[in-house]
Amino acid sequence: MTVTLLAHTDNPSKVVASAARLCYSASRADELFDGLDEARTAEFLKKLRDVGHMSPFEHASFTFAVDGLSRVASHQLVRHRIASFSQQSQRYVTMSSSRESVIVPPTVERTPEAAELFAAQGAAAYMAYERLIELGVPKEDARFILPHGWTTSLMITMNARELHHFFSLRLCRRAQWEIRRMASEMLRLVYDAAAELFVIAGPSCLTDGKCREASSCGSPFKNIEELLAGAT
Amino acid sequence: MTVTLLAHTDNPSKVVASAARLCYSASRADELFDGLDEARTAEFLKKLRDVGHMSPFEHASFTFAVDGLSRVASHQLVRHRIASFSQQSQRYVTMSSSRESVIVPPTVERTPEAAELFAAQGAAAYMAYERLIELGVPKEDARFILPHGWTTSLMITMNARELHHFFSLRLCRRAQWEIRRMASEMLRLVYDAAAELFVIAGPSCLTDGKCREASSCGSPFKNIEELLAGAT
Amino acid sequence: MTVTLLAHTDNPSKVVASAARLCYSASRADELFDGLDEARTAEFLKKLRDVGHMSPFEHASFTFAVDGLSRVASHQLVRHRIASFSQQSQRYVTMSSSRESVIVPPTVERTPEAAELFAAQGAAAYMAYERLIELGVPKEDARFILPHGWTTSLMITMNARELHHFFSLRLCRRAQWEIRRMASEMLRLVYDAAAELFVIAGPSCLTDGKCREASSCGSPFKNIEELLAGAT
Amino acid sequence: MTVTLLAHTDNPSKVVASAARLCYSASRADELFDGLDEARTAEFLKKLRDVGHMSPFEHASFTFAVDGLSRVASHQLVRHRIASFSQQSQRYVTMSSSRESVIVPPTVERTPEAAELFAAQGAAAYMAYERLIELGVPKEDARFILPHGWTTSLMITMNARELHHFFSLRLCRRAQWEIRRMASEMLRLVYDAAAELFVIAGPSCLTDGKCREASSCGSPFKNIEELLAGAT
Repeated sequence: MTVTLLAHTDNPSKVVASAARLCYSASRADELFDGLDEARTAEFLKKLRDVGHMSPFEHASFTFAVDGLSRVASHQLVRHRIASFSQQSQRYVTMSSSRESVIVPPTVERTPEAAELFAAQGAAAYMAYERLIELGVPKEDARFILPHGWTTSLMITMNARELHHFFSLRLCRRAQWEIRRMASEMLRLVYDAAAELFVIAGPSCLTDGKCREASSCGSPFKNIEELLAGAT
Repeated sequence: MTVTLLAHTDNPSKVVASAARLCYSASRADELFDGLDEARTAEFLKKLRDVGHMSPFEHASFTFAVDGLSRVASHQLVRHRIASFSQQSQRYVTMSSSRESVIVPPTVERTPEAAELFAAQGAAAYMAYERLIELGVPKEDARFILPHGWTTSLMITMNARELHHFFSLRLCRRAQWEIRRMASEMLRLVYDAAAELFVIAGPSCLTDGKCREASSCGSPFKNIEELLAGAT
Repeated sequence: MTVTLLAHTDNPSKVVASAARLCYSASRADELFDGLDEARTAEFLKKLRDVGHMSPFEHASFTFAVDGLSRVASHQLVRHRIASFSQQSQRYVTMSSSRESVIVPPTVERTPEAAELFAAQGAAAYMAYERLIELGVPKEDARFILPHGWTTSLMITMNARELHHFFSLRLCRRAQWEIRRMASEMLRLVYDAAAELFVIAGPSCLTDGKCREASSCGSPFKNIEELLAGAT
Repeated sequence: MTVTLLAHTDNPSKVVASAARLCYSASRADELFDGLDEARTAEFLKKLRDVGHMSPFEHASFTFAVDGLSRVASHQLVRHRIASFSQQSQRYVTMSSSRESVIVPPTVERTPEAAELFAAQGAAAYMAYERLIELGVPKEDARFILPHGWTTSLMITMNARELHHFFSLRLCRRAQWEIRRMASEMLRLVYDAAAELFVIAGPSCLTDGKCREASSCGSPFKNIEELLAGAT
């Protein structure tokens, strides 16, 4: 899987800090922006996040390209409704079997028999897909036989508030491993681009010191470095 | 595929008509509701739909159960963001191969060789799924090898405005056949429950007399009966 | 202010409980609904609320009529984006001064001088409104001179998940008094209609035992009866 | 009223064009972006807009500061739900009467008697507001007596798809004059920043050659220059 940060709102931290100041200030909206230096911005954003005043975070938006994600994970991903997605269409694009076309879960990879069976079955499915197309089946119907783990590409846009929500759910150790890995890459990228906005981020064990899952994993995160190190 | 209308807002037509009247009336909100008989409601709703004043339609909500939909179609379905979905989880529920477990597209079914190949490949994929689980792979990972056409069950709630939007896109002859079939069942059910709300419904060829697709199918719908007759 | 529950999804508790069961069950969606008696439903919903699995609550929807709310409060109210509103238009409806046309805040009412000044100023503003209309100013422009506390009527639809969110914010003692009073009426109405869905509801002091405000009021709620008793 | 474009997604046109290409291409998401020059981008975006494929426009986001808008207009503005708003709070900020504190509609301004009455009444309302505060009424309650036309400041973020929707409604000659003026400023700003995204924009008389209002104004727009020239 490759995750790239394609674009984002200019000056994301300053934009968010200004929006928050606007609510409580008699100054003009177009003046608030100028008065903010880096230190004040950082301090201000930390306070916002602390007291849960999240709406100003909506004004900064981040756009990612994702390649090599399974359609299992993308099905789950697009359930996030406060987000924008553009996804490669299997109705219009013929699937090829070059590169890594099917995502192999780590739990499959580590058992040789499982890995072999999975690979053989993936190859057979692709051959069936190709044969169906030769037999006149449209590709949008032939794809019904491809494995659910087949890869896809997407463009994703989320604002910083939704990213915080996304990270709180999808960086939890109980999240599905693939979406968690993706979330971890996304956090790393936005942290590089606008650390002030994401100093406090992640599942509730880290941000609130309290697990909100039905049954806890028992291994709370201790700091954001653990999250940035990637899902393992 | 089976689609059932599980529940909906009481008196959906009257609720929508009252909301619309409220905007232009000096009466109290709790009195508007009483003054509406069936004929006035129907006439009023038709006018709303005609002039495109759709926001009052949001006050009536409809909940459906869907069984036997492929995950190909459900992936597409959940892209609708102004809707609520609950879907059977492949992380927690072990897939069984009883009943029709994989959706066979009509274009596959009508060619014997294609149908045989599809069935054989579907069966092989399920056997691989079972074997992976025996080998200790969690079901959430084993499912990566199941065909994308595997069936799922969902509960869907949409309000009448979103249903109109959904019908305009998904009842078009260019829509993917399975989601179109589902949309057709949904229209039939809500039309039975609250015809006044859905007298004018469907793709733009029917509602506006004008195709909005990039390339037209050339067969505009002529009346709602054609839509209610089902997707063919 | 009068708040009325105009309509809601049939069997709201059963619908929500079924949606939740669907996620973890191999049964068909259209069968889940039948197997639920009242006791199981109640127990199931309590568990959902406890572990924060809120998405199934979206399937039940509630529609209210509100009369006699100030436009100060309605401006705040319509910031809730996962909701549907129809509001009396001041562009099309001429405001009359019959009944209680301007909302008088309790803090004004309790000081005689303040109450008198407020009443006189409200009356003068209405006279100016009428005179402007006589002078040919359209009512949509004449209203600029009416007090912000002028009353309005609305129809509101929210699903049970959004209602929970709304109650958590707007039943807090720090919420604006008028919207809090409205939220309290709404809770009373939905609690009567579907107690199982709202047994646990309200600000975080009550539901989580922990205040989430920037500065706490110091008087946490102890039980839902306190909330149902109304805002005081 | 002053409208400023505070920030936006980098390379907004390229981001949108890439997202659209992704749907129909076998290339990787992170490669699409590089291959686009200005001419291809412009041509591609025009085609998208023509066929109504609007979802890629969601990936580009624009943030505005607005000063000197009436709360009449802001109440209407915040009904747009696919947008982010931060607004100056009248609970926390004491209103001052410096500068133009109340918006005077042009229809009031052009009749001397109306203008005088409006000004006198606005001043009296502000004096009442100040006196109420002296009498111990909290400012969040004293504001009930301020005119609805009192000014406010906001920060607004909308993506390009929602902006197109906003422009189609709010640049119509039938739209309320103040929000129409604001929309016109916004269009001018985004057109300067990313003309390719907004070459086709505005009410349906201009974009579709067909009025969608209940009763037409009879003066369809002929070209975007008319819109950019401002609301008159």
